[in-house]
Amino acid sequence: MRKRKVAVLGATGTVGQRFIGLLQGHPWFELTALTTSDAKAGKRYGDVTAWHWAGGMPATVAGMKLQPTTADVDAEICFSALPGDAAEQWEAALAKTGHHVFSNVKTHRMDEDVPLLIAEVNAEHMHALDVQRRNRGWSGSIVTNGNCSAIGFALAAAPLQQTFGIELAVVTTMQAISGAGYPGVASLEKKFLGTWDGKRFVNAGFEFSAHCNRVAVRDGHTETVSLRLRGGPSPDLVKDAMREFRGRPQELKLPTAPERPIHVLEGRDRPQPILDRDTERGMAAVVGRVREDPAMGIKYVVLTHNTIRGAAGASVLNAELLAAEGCLGS
Amino acid sequence: MRKRKVAVLGATGTVGQRFIGLLQGHPWFELTALTTSDAKAGKRYGDVTAWHWAGGMPATVAGMKLQPTTADVDAEICFSALPGDAAEQWEAALAKTGHHVFSNVKTHRMDEDVPLLIAEVNAEHMHALDVQRRNRGWSGSIVTNGNCSAIGFALAAAPLQQTFGIELAVVTTMQAISGAGYPGVASLEKKFLGTWDGKRFVNAGFEFSAHCNRVAVRDGHTETVSLRLRGGPSPDLVKDAMREFRGRPQELKLPTAPERPIHVLEGRDRPQPILDRDTERGMAAVVGRVREDPAMGIKYVVLTHNTIRGAAGASVLNAELLAAEGCLGS
Amino acid sequence: MRKRKVAVLGATGTVGQRFIGLLQGHPWFELTALTTSDAKAGKRYGDVTAWHWAGGMPATVAGMKLQPTTADVDAEICFSALPGDAAEQWEAALAKTGHHVFSNVKTHRMDEDVPLLIAEVNAEHMHALDVQRRNRGWSGSIVTNGNCSAIGFALAAAPLQQTFGIELAVVTTMQAISGAGYPGVASLEKKFLGTWDGKRFVNAGFEFSAHCNRVAVRDGHTETVSLRLRGGPSPDLVKDAMREFRGRPQELKLPTAPERPIHVLEGRDRPQPILDRDTERGMAAVVGRVREDPAMGIKYVVLTHNTIRGAAGASVLNAELLAAEGCLGS
Amino acid sequence: MRKRKVAVLGATGTVGQRFIGLLQGHPWFELTALTTSDAKAGKRYGDVTAWHWAGGMPATVAGMKLQPTTADVDAEICFSALPGDAAEQWEAALAKTGHHVFSNVKTHRMDEDVPLLIAEVNAEHMHALDVQRRNRGWSGSIVTNGNCSAIGFALAAAPLQQTFGIELAVVTTMQAISGAGYPGVASLEKKFLGTWDGKRFVNAGFEFSAHCNRVAVRDGHTETVSLRLRGGPSPDLVKDAMREFRGRPQELKLPTAPERPIHVLEGRDRPQPILDRDTERGMAAVVGRVREDPAMGIKYVVLTHNTIRGAAGASVLNAELLAAEGCLGS
Repeated sequence: MRKRKVAVLGATGTVGQRFIGLLQGHPWFELTALTTSDAKAGKRYGDVTAWHWAGGMPATVAGMKLQPTTADVDAEICFSALPGDAAEQWEAALAKTGHHVFSNVKTHRMDEDVPLLIAEVNAEHMHALDVQRRNRGWSGSIVTNGNCSAIGFALAAAPLQQTFGIELAVVTTMQAISGAGYPGVASLEKKFLGTWDGKRFVNAGFEFSAHCNRVAVRDGHTETVSLRLRGGPSPDLVKDAMREFRGRPQELKLPTAPERPIHVLEGRDRPQPILDRDTERGMAAVVGRVREDPAMGIKYVVLTHNTIRGAAGASVLNAELLAAEGCLGS
Repeated sequence: MRKRKVAVLGATGTVGQRFIGLLQGHPWFELTALTTSDAKAGKRYGDVTAWHWAGGMPATVAGMKLQPTTADVDAEICFSALPGDAAEQWEAALAKTGHHVFSNVKTHRMDEDVPLLIAEVNAEHMHALDVQRRNRGWSGSIVTNGNCSAIGFALAAAPLQQTFGIELAVVTTMQAISGAGYPGVASLEKKFLGTWDGKRFVNAGFEFSAHCNRVAVRDGHTETVSLRLRGGPSPDLVKDAMREFRGRPQELKLPTAPERPIHVLEGRDRPQPILDRDTERGMAAVVGRVREDPAMGIKYVVLTHNTIRGAAGASVLNAELLAAEGCLGS
Repeated sequence: MRKRKVAVLGATGTVGQRFIGLLQGHPWFELTALTTSDAKAGKRYGDVTAWHWAGGMPATVAGMKLQPTTADVDAEICFSALPGDAAEQWEAALAKTGHHVFSNVKTHRMDEDVPLLIAEVNAEHMHALDVQRRNRGWSGSIVTNGNCSAIGFALAAAPLQQTFGIELAVVTTMQAISGAGYPGVASLEKKFLGTWDGKRFVNAGFEFSAHCNRVAVRDGHTETVSLRLRGGPSPDLVKDAMREFRGRPQELKLPTAPERPIHVLEGRDRPQPILDRDTERGMAAVVGRVREDPAMGIKYVVLTHNTIRGAAGASVLNAELLAAEGCLGS
Repeated sequence: MRKRKVAVLGATGTVGQRFIGLLQGHPWFELTALTTSDAKAGKRYGDVTAWHWAGGMPATVAGMKLQPTTADVDAEICFSALPGDAAEQWEAALAKTGHHVFSNVKTHRMDEDVPLLIAEVNAEHMHALDVQRRNRGWSGSIVTNGNCSAIGFALAAAPLQQTFGIELAVVTTMQAISGAGYPGVASLEKKFLGTWDGKRFVNAGFEFSAHCNRVAVRDGHTETVSLRLRGGPSPDLVKDAMREFRGRPQELKLPTAPERPIHVLEGRDRPQPILDRDTERGMAAVVGRVREDPAMGIKYVVLTHNTIRGAAGASVLNAELLAAEGCLGS
């Protein structure tokens, strides 16, 4: 496969940096452009960026010149970590001019013809792109991924929805400092776990309630989950369903895909952010403390790396999926 | 009222120190004895204790001599912060020899004739002491208080149980480092919010589920609570019930009682441990983010100071209540 | 003494809020104006301010209307917590129109005719105000205080400079998150501990080196100090000098003055931010671990509350000093 | 080279776990025994150990059976992370029975015939082993490494001592929570940077002063260092000396040796624990903020990973050095 040129939009921020890190040495994608707000455009990336991640800024990136974000970015694929207003201005414009935009931004998440994609969970939502291109007359496309906490919940809950069916979910998040906020509504989860019927998205039908909290953790969102599942399966059946879960990324052996999307731990004091967030290079959801819940049926804790599985890594995996499935042109 | 002599059992630990702090200048109680394990007995308190709390160790206490814990402690009231095995050994022995033991320890919490008392919530449970003394042939008594997280939940939920009735509660705790663990069972909450029918405790009938977590906070336990209440009251009705809630300690104007047991805040980002845990000298539960829950009906967040309202302060208030009600002799 | 009207300039920030807290119930000063940048002017203080400190925003302040910062503020005394550029624009203008400005900002700290005042340390620097008013034709005045770390060092070192004389000081700061940065130069310390010879400031003559660090502490700057002192006094003599140290605020019994400016602790593990920063309502320097230094002679650790003694409290105390000494008019 | 059998003594603790991690896949050493206190002996390692480090416990280790520490451990090399009293009891006994003990424990550090070895700094101290074996009649040997903070200081200062000569050093440590304490005396540093004259250790002659602090950091000790160097070299000369520094481990290309023992960074806000502690797999000292010190001449900040370079990694490197130099038999 030839290498596709990719750009990171909003390259100097926390998530932009994660994109850059994940794209180093990527077998399919070649990082050719970094964009930013006008104020920093024209400067060397290394001169204006405080690098957040261990290991230091890749040397090849430090010397790249930052471009202003425009509709003419020289790249087939654009990974967007733009601020909200810049996303509003440029993502659709870029899709119109033929770019495939993979966005972490909320602007288009709930649009009727924009996939809100978790590659293992709802790969068939990609077919909405046909409708999207037809509706909008675009030669490119926009695919979004959910925010960090929603991805963590949905990834771990997907096999339960598929195997048993969720009736009621009560979730409390304990979000790391490096992550963004959580939406006030439960719509993301229901779109994630819903279906594409060929014409439209049909949300999953369960009831959902979330409490969101910020805690003193650097990276890694933890969520406590209480579920009422159809048929009242035992904790062992729930764990089996999670452990056996595989999706298209695993079938296609995509470069960024974790071998197993969900790791289930048995220790009473796991998962923990520092110990477990980097499981499968930060791309797996780590579940622990699966047990009977006297009131709801099942409860467990799920941890995901909020800026990898919950943000940049999810987008890169989505792009790999669509490239492998032939949705991005040849 | 004459001053009663009181002892702190297990005086050098975190909760023991809180007892000492709360008893400084107490109008009804006079601190006359501090006990400890045999290893430290005979030493000056100030020489063997690393004081944890702001303000420093009271000078009068620093000079007191530590005694070994025995059944002969010279005090009417014993506040117990003993380790589990020492509590097992001494609390009943002290009650037998006429002491009124107010314990933070779990040993006797679920005993059939031992009140698990939150002074505002279930003051009538004190009548179980008649049965206790008769059953056991004690001249003294044992009263327990719940652990820190259970007290926080029960105090805030009490007016909702009284006014509406709780059907289902799902709770996630984020517990401070200074606090002890949480029980694996929901029995404490149901005993707290249950009744004394003259002969036995009748647990409250709701379903209860808890997830317990430790977070990087020094003091102050935060809990997210989702409730299904009878009649589906609005958030405003829930807030009214909480704000108007008063108990016997408020009627009796007990020295350690908060003016209002529950403070309800309106800010989106409250309660927070550092800002709110010291409300009413740490004796109030602070509730915020009361709102509709799409799945359960009502959700909110409650914060309590885990070593004051959730431990030592609760015991001192219980002792004041029983003294005022004439349950400790004249 | 009649109450003087005072304003807080830059009232919504961290230090502005501390000023407001310290001025509640002040016997000499009456808070009549709160200023801010133009964007927030006209709004209620309580509506646009996220209050940082325990105890909550004073109710009387929540309802006050924010004014834009101008030269016409209706107050005799202005406590300035302005950002740098606003300080540049307004502090001198206010002094010109007759206001007595007590500033936390660095703009005028090193001016030749502006006192850099720590009330206990260099009260005689106030006489520079005569020169200042003459030079500049002002009816008002500007007095500054140093930044948080410099005040902590200088307050604890003042009795050593007076009693023995400092030859060399090596300091490492561990600064709390709530504090601002540290200057790269040693000039503040030398001006603090220097003298006013009637015409000009004469800096103290010792050598000074500082390393500055930020640590994960909410409030309270800790500094390790190694000193070479004239005559090589023992730790006991050093501690005596610190303990006996008193300044004009203590002689005059100023309302905000600590009874003892320096508290010396004996515990091996003290001072600690959480335990000791609030000593004397945050107005005392707390020193510990005074011991012989094999290389330099003496070493110790000093802790000060960075937003009280190191900022707002220092300014309020300076204003009290000048009011009591008759430097602010009758 | 045949693989040598190695044991980890005190295998369940923080440093013991680091040893285990570093020995996974080691080309020269094969981990064959894990010892512990009697209470845990006989149990599976995975059943009684709470694993501290990211990546999880190696599966092969989880199944190994813990042995009691005795003088008959079946291994040539013993890495000791024993508690002090067990080290006292067993390290010499093991050396007597032919084991080569590499110890992190302080028991023998200052013994006259025991090398206190940092492989890059004082490799020639290994010759003391001849004296040690002769003196004590041992067929084995004991080599110690310094504690975490002392290693960090000595490694970064070694090229300065060699190139210029140190006259005076003032150090303040900010130690991570995972590390042990710091000695109250300066003797370690002087032994590290001293020489072996063929018969005895000659300590380095400079004056040394240290302030030690614990800060809220998980891993990575930071130290601020102010130095008076002979000849008063510029910061650039100091940085050159550090950057060019290599020792025997680099010449011999030992498996655990960092390519460059000292990394010098230019950023104003570096080193930082999270960003820099893992440089060269945690085996390099990372230096930053090298600048002129108005009082002492030179100042800088040095960071080392306290449980790798400052503990287990240092011991493993020492063992590799002695194996490569033929000091452990063939």
